[in-house]
Amino acid sequence: MSMKVVIVGGSTAGFICSLAARRFNEDAKIVVIRRERKALVTCGIPYIFGTLLSIEKDLLPDKLLADNNIELVIGEVKSIRRDEKVVVLSNGQEMSYDKLVLATGSTPVRPPVPGMDFENVFFAKKDPDYLQRLLLKLEGAKDVVVIGGGFVGVEFAEQFRKRGLNVTIVELLPHCLQLNFDDEYCIMAEEKLRELGIRVITKETVEEVVGENGKVVGVRLAGGERLKADIVLVAVGVRPETTLAREAGLKIGEMGGVWVNEYMQTSDEDIFAAGDCAEKYSFFTKKPTNLRLASIAAREAKIVAANLSQPRVKNSGAIGCFATVVGDLGLGVAGLIERTAREVGFDVLVGTATTVDKHPGAMPGTKKLKVKLIFDRASRVIIGGEVAGGVTAAELANIVSIMIERRMTVEEVAFSQYGTHPALTASPRTHPIAYAAEDALLKRASSAA
Amino acid sequence: MSMKVVIVGGSTAGFICSLAARRFNEDAKIVVIRRERKALVTCGIPYIFGTLLSIEKDLLPDKLLADNNIELVIGEVKSIRRDEKVVVLSNGQEMSYDKLVLATGSTPVRPPVPGMDFENVFFAKKDPDYLQRLLLKLEGAKDVVVIGGGFVGVEFAEQFRKRGLNVTIVELLPHCLQLNFDDEYCIMAEEKLRELGIRVITKETVEEVVGENGKVVGVRLAGGERLKADIVLVAVGVRPETTLAREAGLKIGEMGGVWVNEYMQTSDEDIFAAGDCAEKYSFFTKKPTNLRLASIAAREAKIVAANLSQPRVKNSGAIGCFATVVGDLGLGVAGLIERTAREVGFDVLVGTATTVDKHPGAMPGTKKLKVKLIFDRASRVIIGGEVAGGVTAAELANIVSIMIERRMTVEEVAFSQYGTHPALTASPRTHPIAYAAEDALLKRASSAA
Repeated sequence: MSMKVVIVGGSTAGFICSLAARRFNEDAKIVVIRRERKALVTCGIPYIFGTLLSIEKDLLPDKLLADNNIELVIGEVKSIRRDEKVVVLSNGQEMSYDKLVLATGSTPVRPPVPGMDFENVFFAKKDPDYLQRLLLKLEGAKDVVVIGGGFVGVEFAEQFRKRGLNVTIVELLPHCLQLNFDDEYCIMAEEKLRELGIRVITKETVEEVVGENGKVVGVRLAGGERLKADIVLVAVGVRPETTLAREAGLKIGEMGGVWVNEYMQTSDEDIFAAGDCAEKYSFFTKKPTNLRLASIAAREAKIVAANLSQPRVKNSGAIGCFATVVGDLGLGVAGLIERTAREVGFDVLVGTATTVDKHPGAMPGTKKLKVKLIFDRASRVIIGGEVAGGVTAAELANIVSIMIERRMTVEEVAFSQYGTHPALTASPRTHPIAYAAEDALLKRASSAA
Repeated sequence: MSMKVVIVGGSTAGFICSLAARRFNEDAKIVVIRRERKALVTCGIPYIFGTLLSIEKDLLPDKLLADNNIELVIGEVKSIRRDEKVVVLSNGQEMSYDKLVLATGSTPVRPPVPGMDFENVFFAKKDPDYLQRLLLKLEGAKDVVVIGGGFVGVEFAEQFRKRGLNVTIVELLPHCLQLNFDDEYCIMAEEKLRELGIRVITKETVEEVVGENGKVVGVRLAGGERLKADIVLVAVGVRPETTLAREAGLKIGEMGGVWVNEYMQTSDEDIFAAGDCAEKYSFFTKKPTNLRLASIAAREAKIVAANLSQPRVKNSGAIGCFATVVGDLGLGVAGLIERTAREVGFDVLVGTATTVDKHPGAMPGTKKLKVKLIFDRASRVIIGGEVAGGVTAAELANIVSIMIERRMTVEEVAFSQYGTHPALTASPRTHPIAYAAEDALLKRASSAA
């Protein structure tokens, strides 16, 4: 008899898991249960508001589910009866499973600030109807305040600005993107944000969101300043959505995600978890970490799909590889940044390279390219890298991610083989990953001497 | 006493070797002996003719040599007296060395076809004055024939067309780029060439270059057709320039390059060779191979630089990673293509992916992205990959190159961690490298079943 797989949640992890499950299990019966009528391409959400200008253009292609004989049920799972291997939907319907996948995602954190309930205060919710309201509201808006300068806040701010709004970012930490990049990269991003005309306020907290007649009119900062706002977008992080798992008695991890083993099985071996709802473990420390990215969700979803019939693919832990764009500045990162590496106790060896993303530099459209690589001095193994450049920033970060996963040494990174082309890359002499590793190598040589 | 390093040749390998030698050997005396007054960024050469429109914009920055205390001598080395460790220049000057680096490059192959001496028949020579003449001649030209549809010929043809000339490529093999790509990728390139308005003639040989009053006027093909031509550009390969090495009694390899060991030392341990003049060995078979690329030259030059004071970095052999561009089509390749892999005896497992280079596909400027990965079925290790897409094609090929060097298995490639971003990459579900590996994995599963 063929295996029946039920997937709870149809956003990044659930959607990808269902399609990968079909690839790995031709005969399985696969059901996705999703609350939303339509689901979004999550990483595309900020781009709805300045580039795509339509919710429809950022929807996951449900047709793929039908094409792959995956049943889509719009509904909400209210409970799991693990002893009977049955899920119960809010309409009372019961559905049996052989393998259950929890892909319940995350919900935006609601900061403890007065005024969060005023009309026109929005969160980065993955709900098409909710975001459609934001899209409509933006049409009459003039002043927008984005609370939170992490990458979600920065991407929303950049897109709001693209449509001509007055945009201010308020960030608690000394820099925007501070959890993702070392200071010099954060500063490049902030300079670009300001160049685009966005006001960036850092080391500042929001004291109160101010409203009149139930609608937001501004934001009062701890420093006393009052910012005008027709719209406030709050992006201060997400919290794993684990209610269903908790109520079913599944183990919850230290960071609040559903505990999983390296095969992505929860404390019930027939129930898997993937994506934002699942606890994440660091590739480097093997300890729980707060990384939540669509790319991590995608990989976990594929690992779950491969393990449904038999656990065989292990999750090596989250490296954390991601990219973002501010204007024409592409930023990418993989692994540990220098600050974090030092915090978790690594004695680091750092190499940097500054070059251009085409060669010779006279090629049209050439952009500056900066790379920083972080190595563990003791083992000489690469543990992180940051990239600032143009449209190749993400794939350059992916090169670093692969190098981290394969635990390459500084010598191996320096003397690896990189292809080049005038219109596509830096020169053969200065391919930035090799060149930054060369820089680190020389520092090691001179400090050893 | 500080080491004296003499480098013969100042093109890609010589230039890079001198700068890397300085990085690795702070105190060394470093001399570069170069025939040309100015030297070119070699991979940029075709782009002089349609994009840069100036030789000056494609020159190596000699200022870097001076800034790094590297002496540049314009002259020609006529002989090496190895017993005395002295080189002799054509002006009679003698120069001693502790370590000598041969970076004498290659010269274009002159096919045995009548008419090669007519005026306005040009070769892809790395000589600024020679290429300046071609640049001037193009101004009055209308019809150009490019003999040879390898990547150099294709890049020249594309650039000639960019300035509005009538361009015809004549290629002996069934497809352009056939030595570099599998047929389906060659066909994409040919379609793009034709879309740009370039005539592509394949499986055809040039019988004769026709001249009148000493000047080229056309090309006669074996099939009988006569093509008009004001200019003919011949790009049918290069031959290593090894006269100096031969005359000094150094061992020459099977493919005609200067024999080197894995530390890039010639048969005289104080003489190194790097770049096109040096024999190349395949990463896969360890046998001599005909790969000659600027990126290989660059890596060899850096390995030589690191080994000058003491041999320590080994050359693992040439993977062959390179990229090219035809119109808006970016093409990249690393390692063995499927055809070659089969020819050298691999039982191959192939996976393919077709996706887009941004996500959702509604993002502006989105281009189709195709990836093919080739694995050795027995070991499950990746041995090659091809990419057709946009501006990220080269860095995607570099990801594959690193995976090949690290001998990653199909499972490891499929479940690696790739960061994504709407404006920079495919979606988390379909990052083409993971996705193509997933495809290969499923084929393996089904053929094993």
